[in-house]
Amino acid sequence: MEKEVQKIKEFIYSFYSKYSYNGIIIGISGGIDSAVCAKLCVDSVGKESVFGLLLPERDSDKQTISDSKLVCDHLNIKYKIINLKPILKSMKVYKLQPPSFFIPRKIQEKYVKKRWANESPDTFISDLKDEGNKSFLEGLAYYRVKHRVRLNLLYFEAEKKGYCVAGTTNKTEEKSGFYVKYGDDSSDIEPLIHLYKTEVIEMANFLNIPDKIINKSPSPDLIPGITDEFAMGISYKDLDRILIKKEKNISLNDEDPKKVQRVDKILQSNIKRKIKNISLKRTDQ
Amino acid sequence: MEKEVQKIKEFIYSFYSKYSYNGIIIGISGGIDSAVCAKLCVDSVGKESVFGLLLPERDSDKQTISDSKLVCDHLNIKYKIINLKPILKSMKVYKLQPPSFFIPRKIQEKYVKKRWANESPDTFISDLKDEGNKSFLEGLAYYRVKHRVRLNLLYFEAEKKGYCVAGTTNKTEEKSGFYVKYGDDSSDIEPLIHLYKTEVIEMANFLNIPDKIINKSPSPDLIPGITDEFAMGISYKDLDRILIKKEKNISLNDEDPKKVQRVDKILQSNIKRKIKNISLKRTDQ
Repeated sequence: MEKEVQKIKEFIYSFYSKYSYNGIIIGISGGIDSAVCAKLCVDSVGKESVFGLLLPERDSDKQTISDSKLVCDHLNIKYKIINLKPILKSMKVYKLQPPSFFIPRKIQEKYVKKRWANESPDTFISDLKDEGNKSFLEGLAYYRVKHRVRLNLLYFEAEKKGYCVAGTTNKTEEKSGFYVKYGDDSSDIEPLIHLYKTEVIEMANFLNIPDKIINKSPSPDLIPGITDEFAMGISYKDLDRILIKKEKNISLNDEDPKKVQRVDKILQSNIKRKIKNISLKRTDQ
Repeated sequence: MEKEVQKIKEFIYSFYSKYSYNGIIIGISGGIDSAVCAKLCVDSVGKESVFGLLLPERDSDKQTISDSKLVCDHLNIKYKIINLKPILKSMKVYKLQPPSFFIPRKIQEKYVKKRWANESPDTFISDLKDEGNKSFLEGLAYYRVKHRVRLNLLYFEAEKKGYCVAGTTNKTEEKSGFYVKYGDDSSDIEPLIHLYKTEVIEMANFLNIPDKIINKSPSPDLIPGITDEFAMGISYKDLDRILIKKEKNISLNDEDPKKVQRVDKILQSNIKRKIKNISLKRTDQ
């Protein structure tokens, strides 16, 4: 692990100095990926050159901001909070989903989970395929726009300062399509994208990221109650183990066939996310 | 030209049907690229399946909306106008540049041109390199965020409808870096990216795009008075001719050395735009 950490730190430093950036900006979500990414950046270029952007909105979990602040304070980096709510409101995003100010979070989460599950027999697969009825498609538009506004604000802040944007996508997300196209998949540098989620968790432990951040359930924090594992229908432990076996051509005989089928279905359905700038030239090649 | 048009139409149709999109959405700017792109889409999938999004903002030219409407009416496609002003305001974008409501457009343009030129000895090169003082960097952030908000809205509308997003980048822009990263360079399909600007103009004539659209000076319409050719410091005619000669290894001996130098400088400076998701894996490869 120490060797891997060293390799990433050198990679970040060489990128950063080669292109003479003034600093690195990272969207801090309170989750483990952005915490590990920020920590690696701090250890590479120094805490003075790393800036956190906290981008909560109406549907964010209450813990989001306090956890994000915990990360920034732990790393001793400067940060800024921009609430997306007025921006999303001006884009008429919230009109797509009923307001829920006065409904307690737990009931909200239960309702949304049930609704999400009712929209499609397999919401994540339909999501990957961009398939569904009007209300389902609106649900996709509703959550995805949030990550795109975040990308927007990250670049807006970065460009004002001459900073680069560090992304926090990991290999599990990249392989399974668990990201928003031109949203959280887009950045200047991706320090973690060669690591599976379970490897990022290991690294978080090695780097002494606060336990509170490591132990919370990974969630995209876009729709109340929808965690990563709920959305994907498989645990990261199972998903990564099967993905790694597939990558290394290791037999899957001792795996639960249902889980293997789930992973296969995810990989086969992950087509639309990969569609970017398809052109005649590229098609001809 | 007819053959090339046919090739693109087949390309659009095969992409569109392969992935079962419900339609194609295009940002209509009133310029020639989006007009040609929309026309090709209409001729491929039918006007009922093409939707125009008109996205003006505070600094847009007065002609922008009327020209964009002219294009949509000419093609007989449905469209929607979303003014970016409230969104950019909620993002505090306009705070970066003084308000100019009551200053006549011509004076505005003159002032901005002078200011833009004063910011750097060669603004486009500094722009490509993301280099400059605080005020210059803020100028970059100021104009770029607009194209990114446009991308955001294109996908928001597209995803609600199950449509794909067609981009309008041409080969001249792509080669010279005359685009905004994760802004107007991002889409699902790029029907024109294998064509130089001068070829797009030829195609516009062939496709009977209204003269008013063909004959106006190409402009990103992001900062008053800044046309493409003013920004790049070279005409499209010269730029394309030299780019094509370079591509085909044709001698540049009969070209004005100053113009060749200009093109070389642009190509050499166009580095930062190409930086996307740099990762350890990709670097190692």
